[in-house]
Amino acid sequence: MNPDPFPLPPDKVSPLEWTGDCLRVLDQRLLPSRIAYLDCRSAEDVAEATRSMALRGAPLIGVAAAFGMALAARRSDGPAGLSRAAEVLRRSRPTAVNLFHAVEHMLSVAHAANGDFADRLRREAEAYWKRDFEANRTMARTGSALLKRPCRVITYCNAGALATSGLGTSLGMIRYAFHEGKIEHVYPCETRPYLQGSRLTLWELMQCGIPATLITDNMAGHLMKTRPIGAVIVGSDRIAANGDVCNKIGTYMLAVLARHHRIPFYVVAPTTTVDFSARTGAAIPIEERNPDEVLTLAGQRIAPAGARAHHFAFDVTPRELVTAIVTEKGVVRPVNNKKLKEVVVRR
Amino acid sequence: MNPDPFPLPPDKVSPLEWTGDCLRVLDQRLLPSRIAYLDCRSAEDVAEATRSMALRGAPLIGVAAAFGMALAARRSDGPAGLSRAAEVLRRSRPTAVNLFHAVEHMLSVAHAANGDFADRLRREAEAYWKRDFEANRTMARTGSALLKRPCRVITYCNAGALATSGLGTSLGMIRYAFHEGKIEHVYPCETRPYLQGSRLTLWELMQCGIPATLITDNMAGHLMKTRPIGAVIVGSDRIAANGDVCNKIGTYMLAVLARHHRIPFYVVAPTTTVDFSARTGAAIPIEERNPDEVLTLAGQRIAPAGARAHHFAFDVTPRELVTAIVTEKGVVRPVNNKKLKEVVVRR
Repeated sequence: MNPDPFPLPPDKVSPLEWTGDCLRVLDQRLLPSRIAYLDCRSAEDVAEATRSMALRGAPLIGVAAAFGMALAARRSDGPAGLSRAAEVLRRSRPTAVNLFHAVEHMLSVAHAANGDFADRLRREAEAYWKRDFEANRTMARTGSALLKRPCRVITYCNAGALATSGLGTSLGMIRYAFHEGKIEHVYPCETRPYLQGSRLTLWELMQCGIPATLITDNMAGHLMKTRPIGAVIVGSDRIAANGDVCNKIGTYMLAVLARHHRIPFYVVAPTTTVDFSARTGAAIPIEERNPDEVLTLAGQRIAPAGARAHHFAFDVTPRELVTAIVTEKGVVRPVNNKKLKEVVVRR
Repeated sequence: MNPDPFPLPPDKVSPLEWTGDCLRVLDQRLLPSRIAYLDCRSAEDVAEATRSMALRGAPLIGVAAAFGMALAARRSDGPAGLSRAAEVLRRSRPTAVNLFHAVEHMLSVAHAANGDFADRLRREAEAYWKRDFEANRTMARTGSALLKRPCRVITYCNAGALATSGLGTSLGMIRYAFHEGKIEHVYPCETRPYLQGSRLTLWELMQCGIPATLITDNMAGHLMKTRPIGAVIVGSDRIAANGDVCNKIGTYMLAVLARHHRIPFYVVAPTTTVDFSARTGAAIPIEERNPDEVLTLAGQRIAPAGARAHHFAFDVTPRELVTAIVTEKGVVRPVNNKKLKEVVVRR
């Protein structure tokens, strides 16, 4: 008997490699043209990789932060010595709640540790990584069950193997559904300004042999109007207690368009993405990044000298527009406080 | 007394210059970093400038086509000799109906011409240019009257001085409304893949001293949700007999978002944009351009080798989503067959 009946092949490229004393982080800014890793030997290195967008994807940022804490533990006598590392990591990306979850989790493990403190945190980071991966496998199966066949789907940004411990959240669901014969075609939106869709998601889809055609973000409405689109499937950076979903800027636009066209809008995210301290999406801070990232593209200036730009990195989709949230603990549907709590906490 | 009471200063850069035997066409692909003109001495030259996107903007394409016909007339004995030029020009851009309008108009003038045939067509092209400019002045005033003050507006693509004989259609309305104190701030969307918003509209707004902040196309929804946006104002490439509006890809997305947020959605276009032979928007062919324009940006490849992409150049916004169409003959509101015909034909 096969001890691991999960039917999908492993990812071709891993965004993290752990050597035991070094976290090698795939520099995703260089994809798809180059595959290069950054060596992170401290929490500061991990925070810098996160800040610079070399490391991205909310679940992956969480996993890397767990390793950042484990790296800090190697230089520390006990839990008190971890507070600076925790602070540096927390500040590296304000929106991805998985980051805060991972840091808090590692701190609580540190406080409870007996014996070899550094070894305990190393093992915990490895376990955190593995749990995130297992969560993705579960979400992939659970999410696929929501789809009718055959189905063309639109996806956004990158919530694939590159954004997680493997397989991906929204892209994991798409990969599993493709394996089950439920996906005819995938349309990834390019996702300005960082182009995670064209650089990362399209690349992953092509590596998996899934038929995919890139569109610019502004084509999604036209596509929904003129082609049979069965679902919009996205990930999330943070989910509020009421089910409002914070994700990459542009997600809200897709949700409004999906509602207008009566297309199901699915969010796939591990329960570590839920932030019960945010009562609604209004409580989630929207990171504003450097406007130069909008005024330039691939290093080339595309706007007049002296121009001003907004660079909102995320937006919030109100729960009313979300058909269902797929988590590793089950499907939240309808999306409301009660159902979200029931799935995330009680199960 | 001032013989011309129009209160706005002239445009700083003209997209066309007419020497009498040469149409100098601003190469808009190089903006905003370089100002360079292409010399067009034949209808074929004008068609090539249009095909290559050096020349763009539906009304401007119409005006340039009129000059293209005038250039052809210089080498022709009479109207029969113009049929090849007409065909070459018609084929240069399938969506912009102003092109067809201009070609047909010049052919009918040619057939009716007495005396110096080439001179008659030259004068008619100059008059066509002037009429388009006058139409823009009228639309600017008429459109501005629709706005309440103070108002932040979102605009799309470029329907400014660069897209027309001067002043612009949607941007003309914005410029006039700014002059009247009705515009607080303008958010041009960058408009992928050609970035007419960041390269051209933002540049024009800055030259006019109008406060403007660039956004990526996918930020429009977030902006409508979080800021008081008073109107979305766009141009059009073709309007069907029922009032459906064909315009740059992404316009439909904005219209759906505007409706969701109860924001007025205004289309500004001269009556030469109306195509009564298209019963509805479904009859308007949507040009698909080279996918490489989506897979690359500013010459740089942004997607994996072998990737596929769609490049729909336009989309159709159903009339139900259009608050009003501003033409030089008046405002079409509500937008329906009867009212459109009344404004465009009967007046």
